Amino acid sequence: MSEYVVKGSEKGSVGLVEKRYFTFAQPPDLMTLDCGAKFGPITIAYETLGTLNPDRSNAILVLHALSGDSHVAGYYSYDDPKPGWWDIMVGPGKAIDTNKYFVICSNILGGCMGSTGPSSINPATGRPYAMDFPVVTIGDMVRAQKALIDYLGIPKLLAVIGGSLGGMQVLEWTLLYPNMMKAAIALATTARHSALAIAFNEVARQAIMADSNWNGGNYYDGDAKPDVGLAVARMIGHITYLSDEAMRRKFGRRLQDKSDFSFNFDVDFQVESYLRYQGRKFVERFDANSFLYITKAADYFDVAREHGQGSLVKAFSKARAKFLVVSFSSDWLYPTYQSKELVKAMKKNCLDVSFCEIDAEWGHDAFLLPNERLFSLISGFLDHASHEIN
Amino acid sequence: MSEYVVKGSEKGSVGLVEKRYFTFAQPPDLMTLDCGAKFGPITIAYETLGTLNPDRSNAILVLHALSGDSHVAGYYSYDDPKPGWWDIMVGPGKAIDTNKYFVICSNILGGCMGSTGPSSINPATGRPYAMDFPVVTIGDMVRAQKALIDYLGIPKLLAVIGGSLGGMQVLEWTLLYPNMMKAAIALATTARHSALAIAFNEVARQAIMADSNWNGGNYYDGDAKPDVGLAVARMIGHITYLSDEAMRRKFGRRLQDKSDFSFNFDVDFQVESYLRYQGRKFVERFDANSFLYITKAADYFDVAREHGQGSLVKAFSKARAKFLVVSFSSDWLYPTYQSKELVKAMKKNCLDVSFCEIDAEWGHDAFLLPNERLFSLISGFLDHASHEIN
Repeated sequence: MSEYVVKGSEKGSVGLVEKRYFTFAQPPDLMTLDCGAKFGPITIAYETLGTLNPDRSNAILVLHALSGDSHVAGYYSYDDPKPGWWDIMVGPGKAIDTNKYFVICSNILGGCMGSTGPSSINPATGRPYAMDFPVVTIGDMVRAQKALIDYLGIPKLLAVIGGSLGGMQVLEWTLLYPNMMKAAIALATTARHSALAIAFNEVARQAIMADSNWNGGNYYDGDAKPDVGLAVARMIGHITYLSDEAMRRKFGRRLQDKSDFSFNFDVDFQVESYLRYQGRKFVERFDANSFLYITKAADYFDVAREHGQGSLVKAFSKARAKFLVVSFSSDWLYPTYQSKELVKAMKKNCLDVSFCEIDAEWGHDAFLLPNERLFSLISGFLDHASHEIN
Repeated sequence: MSEYVVKGSEKGSVGLVEKRYFTFAQPPDLMTLDCGAKFGPITIAYETLGTLNPDRSNAILVLHALSGDSHVAGYYSYDDPKPGWWDIMVGPGKAIDTNKYFVICSNILGGCMGSTGPSSINPATGRPYAMDFPVVTIGDMVRAQKALIDYLGIPKLLAVIGGSLGGMQVLEWTLLYPNMMKAAIALATTARHSALAIAFNEVARQAIMADSNWNGGNYYDGDAKPDVGLAVARMIGHITYLSDEAMRRKFGRRLQDKSDFSFNFDVDFQVESYLRYQGRKFVERFDANSFLYITKAADYFDVAREHGQGSLVKAFSKARAKFLVVSFSSDWLYPTYQSKELVKAMKKNCLDVSFCEIDAEWGHDAFLLPNERLFSLISGFLDHASHEIN
């Protein structure tokens, strides 16, 4: 055995994975969206890891957050510089164990990582949809995922799992298709976007639309993209993903590569450098219009409104899954009290629900970071669900 | 007496006030700034209310926050649509009682409301300074205020008082000129900007500098100003001024003039409408470059670094004033723990300090809102200070 470990061959890695595409809603069989529009064709990019067992009962659908994609774990090639976005969670012997489970992850409708979104070509015009793309909801995203699951021939999922916007999709799945999963794991999420969360998204959208290169969403033909606006939007997001405490520990007031203030408007503090870097990095891989559409879907998300005529308790009367709800103590984007509201509504419907607030200092992003407590909660919950008769 | 009450004549109003100007640091007697540059001439816009008593012992200097100005209370004319920014606090019979005290408020150095700032004409070029304006600090602002107080012939202030950025000036005053005041009132402020506060300011600055109309700060000659970037910056600020709870109460998920989602990128939610309105309103009255300079001054502010070689306790060994420090329970921009750090450092120096955390749900902005507890604290503290022999 060579001492040189190639990417994907290290212990716990699922190895190489491949992005696949599924297209449905071909005219005239268009999909009806929540906005009322009929839309199609729709392509969904997805990846699978592990093996579907003969009775097709070990499938877990992972739902990604705002800037995620179908590439949940593993590598695309042996020289791929980094693995999928949740490689710490998904792989052989990991919390979502690909030796046991068949894991599916797809890019959301409206995204820009292979699924149909505003940057996709509108077959009617031969040009990108741009702002002609319909405003989609979390419900629309989930309906598209359901088409994929049907196509893969899975009659019932073992579990749906996701954090943040992925957690919203988890909740939506349990209400739109209550009998399609045994278990549901909702991490760092909420039953509805608060005014504060809407406010941050709105300012981020305004930053993009304020960029003169945005040009009403029509920037795909030219050289100039609304990179600056998108970078500012991403910077705003990154502030909300960390906590006051996390920022203090990570950056404090430390200066970046200098011993004194610059007395100009260059970077002085490490936190400034970090945010600018995050902004720059994001524009290389993300489409500004997708950012607009996905944040709008998050803002519209309101389980009580959509499923319970304003009542969260009534909404969850539809649900049948057993739930694991996890919040993080320093998450101020979707604070613990919002998870507790969820849990209360589930309990009032006598649903089987486990709740845990994990004491974590890293803010909203904690669900993406290594955490033994989170790993063991998820691993145990899935193990239990997979052995239950249902 | 007419039933028609003209502006400024209602009970508790200080009536009409006038903006005045004081110019100093005329070449060659330039002021040395913290950045090392020698700078002048400097004009400071200021207003005074009430009457200076014969022994000149009843003067209170009010220090304004980021977007404030010298117009602290009263009206400029009988048809002035609204009074100064702290009219609820300052006036005859109010907490800062103009029947007793001579109140001074000046626009900060670097501002855009009459004091010298980036939009002022550089006498050397005959054009606005723009980004040739030096990066000023809270210390520089306070040194300019000291020149004004000297000019007004006041040997010692009864008190300095301010909230937020105004509170930083209060702290700076007590350390730069320890014997120049009997009392100091610091509201909703901090001894240093946290990484979180710097992060918000940095994103706001990036939003301004990302606006193509900003043009490296040179927008004074043309028609187009970086209004969109400045509006986004202001929107970011407004989020930080409110709390999660305040936003939920004030807006929740209520829709703006509609009963259903628009499924487009117009305003859906009241909170979006509020933020866009605040952004629009701000650009009418504020200069984008001033916003850059003032936020930078706030980020640089660090009492321990400037006055205590890194130690807050050491910094306050210079202070002589008696202090009132007030924080607000829902302020997450400058949370209570930061005020407590201040108070601890003051107490370790055996300073006379009163501290109160006011239970208020309106976030950072609470210091600007009506609050009986705050009024009585300030009124009592000033009354006590004015009767003390010092």
